[in-house]
Amino acid sequence: MQSLQEKASQWSGVHQADAFAIDETNLFEKLGLQSFINLSTNFYNRVYDDEEEWFRSIFANSKKEDAIQNQYEFFVQRMGGPPMYSQRRGHPALIARHRPFPVTHQAAERWLQHMQNALDESSDIDPESKIKMMNFFRHTAFFLVAGDELKNQNKQHQVGCKCKHAAEKPAEE
Amino acid sequence: MQSLQEKASQWSGVHQADAFAIDETNLFEKLGLQSFINLSTNFYNRVYDDEEEWFRSIFANSKKEDAIQNQYEFFVQRMGGPPMYSQRRGHPALIARHRPFPVTHQAAERWLQHMQNALDESSDIDPESKIKMMNFFRHTAFFLVAGDELKNQNKQHQVGCKCKHAAEKPAEE
Repeated sequence: MQSLQEKASQWSGVHQADAFAIDETNLFEKLGLQSFINLSTNFYNRVYDDEEEWFRSIFANSKKEDAIQNQYEFFVQRMGGPPMYSQRRGHPALIARHRPFPVTHQAAERWLQHMQNALDESSDIDPESKIKMMNFFRHTAFFLVAGDELKNQNKQHQVGCKCKHAAEKPAEE
Repeated sequence: MQSLQEKASQWSGVHQADAFAIDETNLFEKLGLQSFINLSTNFYNRVYDDEEEWFRSIFANSKKEDAIQNQYEFFVQRMGGPPMYSQRRGHPALIARHRPFPVTHQAAERWLQHMQNALDESSDIDPESKIKMMNFFRHTAFFLVAGDELKNQNKQHQVGCKCKHAAEKPAEE
């Protein structure tokens, strides 16, 4: 069975090594907290104003300011800064925390388009960092699509209603 | 609804701030790679030799050397070292990757007992670091028990077979 990260690489077109090139330099030290806050604010302004109702509705149960904070705290923590996210909320547990949302290929692509636009407008992030960050975001978005499939496996079981005692299948070999 | 981290704190008896006191100092720099390899090796030797078949069987589909590597690479990455885990396997996604396993309260306690014994035998880890690590492990173990409940919610749905089109419920408010 293909692993989560193999699916993420295949669907995103981003190799694992390129996705985690964000770790080659400390992007938090390079860019500073405010750049991350600005990026997430710009991103979620776009998301909450999206003309596509199907996409906007994914975020309808979250306050915009909470979404912004959750995102930039995770980015800061993952890109070399203080563990702001975990101090407040525990482990990122990315797949489990996205479980309420329909993370489809289509949703991933729209998320990424908003993030690309937000990055394009970020004058406080240098071009090389933008490329690294976008590779990370692209790979991660499709990692979450792969994670979403685990949930859909369960749903198919529900529909079939044949698997009352079915064992959980490993996500990884 | 109680969040994952609130359940983790309640069930483990470890406050969020104590769980993430591992971030106060860089434990990787303090202890070095070999200490983490030794700890995970000692831990999994105990797990694979456990006299309790119900617990040992949880790990039966994984090779011991793979389990050791996955664990120490995650610990190294999370405790201030290089991102060895993500370079090889992508995001930790702790809850999703534990999805194949029955992470019950009883299993968490037994996992923790083996880890406590392994730490007790680790002469290359100082007492203060051991306390920090154990708080982190204890909180994380019950964070995963909380994550496991999400899966059980689905299973209950399957048994009831009433929820063909049931919406996913958020794990967090």
